[in-house]
Amino acid sequence: MCSDKILTGLLAVSYAIYLLLGAIVFRALEKNEELEQKRAVIQMKVAFLQNLAHLTEADVEQFVKNLTDAVQRGVYPVGNESQAEDSNWDLCNSFFFVAAMVSTIGYGTLCPKTVAGQIFCVFFASFGIPFTIVFLHRVSKMLFLPCERLGRCLYERGMRKKKIKFLTLLFFLVMGILVFLCLPSVVFQVMEGWSYSEGFYFAFITLSTIGFGDYVVDKQPDRNYPSYYRFLVAIWIIFGLVWIAFLFNLLTTLLEDTEKKIAQNLHKRGKA
Amino acid sequence: MCSDKILTGLLAVSYAIYLLLGAIVFRALEKNEELEQKRAVIQMKVAFLQNLAHLTEADVEQFVKNLTDAVQRGVYPVGNESQAEDSNWDLCNSFFFVAAMVSTIGYGTLCPKTVAGQIFCVFFASFGIPFTIVFLHRVSKMLFLPCERLGRCLYERGMRKKKIKFLTLLFFLVMGILVFLCLPSVVFQVMEGWSYSEGFYFAFITLSTIGFGDYVVDKQPDRNYPSYYRFLVAIWIIFGLVWIAFLFNLLTTLLEDTEKKIAQNLHKRGKA
Ligand SMILES: [K+]
Ligand SMILES: [K+]
Repeated sequence: MCSDKILTGLLAVSYAIYLLLGAIVFRALEKNEELEQKRAVIQMKVAFLQNLAHLTEADVEQFVKNLTDAVQRGVYPVGNESQAEDSNWDLCNSFFFVAAMVSTIGYGTLCPKTVAGQIFCVFFASFGIPFTIVFLHRVSKMLFLPCERLGRCLYERGMRKKKIKFLTLLFFLVMGILVFLCLPSVVFQVMEGWSYSEGFYFAFITLSTIGFGDYVVDKQPDRNYPSYYRFLVAIWIIFGLVWIAFLFNLLTTLLEDTEKKIAQNLHKRGKA
Repeated sequence: MCSDKILTGLLAVSYAIYLLLGAIVFRALEKNEELEQKRAVIQMKVAFLQNLAHLTEADVEQFVKNLTDAVQRGVYPVGNESQAEDSNWDLCNSFFFVAAMVSTIGYGTLCPKTVAGQIFCVFFASFGIPFTIVFLHRVSKMLFLPCERLGRCLYERGMRKKKIKFLTLLFFLVMGILVFLCLPSVVFQVMEGWSYSEGFYFAFITLSTIGFGDYVVDKQPDRNYPSYYRFLVAIWIIFGLVWIAFLFNLLTTLLEDTEKKIAQNLHKRGKA
């Protein structure tokens, strides 16, 4: 039991180091490229402003097209020269990018643009994704402990095994929906100013690892987030990913059971 | 064997119907909202053009901010009123969105904006993702057939089981990298005008289900794609997802074996 805890600790630390090293490399590879692109967009804006008196419709259309391209490439053209020095690829954002990548959520709010960054991405994720799975396997053992305890408690009171299985599953499902979807939605409502349904949608899209990137936490420039918020979100994602993987597994098993029954029916008919 | 083929067919057809129904519902829910947003952006552009002679720096900044918001919401402000009638939510794009969602790739180039669309998204994906897993399980059986045949062939020639396992794995790995990553990268190079490394990066980001959405196939307005291209991409994704899931599984097993060895060492030391 003690060596098991040491192993969990070792795994968590080495996983964190792996992510941190990745974040440092991506920052080194991407920061300059991004600053150059940002400066180019701001220069384009300055040139547009200087020419304000002599603009044609075609100029505006070209300006809109260039701006659209820049935003789609992840360069935000709002603000002036001084803000151009703020990088999306600081260590914190780079770590967020790496974590979103290896969990396969992949919001896509920040993406590598350099050839080196893209190639490193492929290698880093090739090992990072299995590493994440191993880490989450270990977390899942912790998450299932309360369910096991509940099961043992009910078994000692003389309940039938089938009923226990059903009850622990129900407990796991209902508690999970409350703790991983309903409760976080309230937190996002307060912290991000989203509606409750937007918070719920974001929570589901994140934990299911779809990660559209239309809603992302901790990213609105006009909001102040407390320092513990990021930490809470990380904990929520780690346990939430495990919970939803279990849920999808359960639904997959149910579907495959149905499939087997249909196969048996087909087989019987084929023989008849 | 025959009933097995019928079952595969049934599964594929019901899966396709599920996706198609989803695409129809999303189109119905989202199309109007998107058209309204698009019209609003184009009106803003027209107002900006009319006021061209009296613009201040602050006006331009506000215009840039509004445009940035629009692009981030997925409304592309390039073009004029007539183009505003083209919807991102036609049946084809809606189907592409649904497929990207249930495979958890989630490029995020198209996202539901209405409350109804977002709620439907949660329910549709809750069953759609397990459904996809069941479908891919069935595909994986087809994909592993050549490997099994190769193994049987080698076994009949008197090769040792361990060596056969290693050789089939190597065959699976090398063939997979060639067929699912290297070859498609060449196709993307030709069809999308990306560099080879960009194509490789896109292929990996898609099949690993990270799906940043910075590169998406069949979406560049200035390119003509042949009609079979979409079909080829769909086939590539279906088989590629199965292959890469197997690859990640393999790497996870390797990591967990290492973990076990470390645990045994820790246990021995704890006893000593
Ligand atoms: K994803
Ligand atoms: K994604």
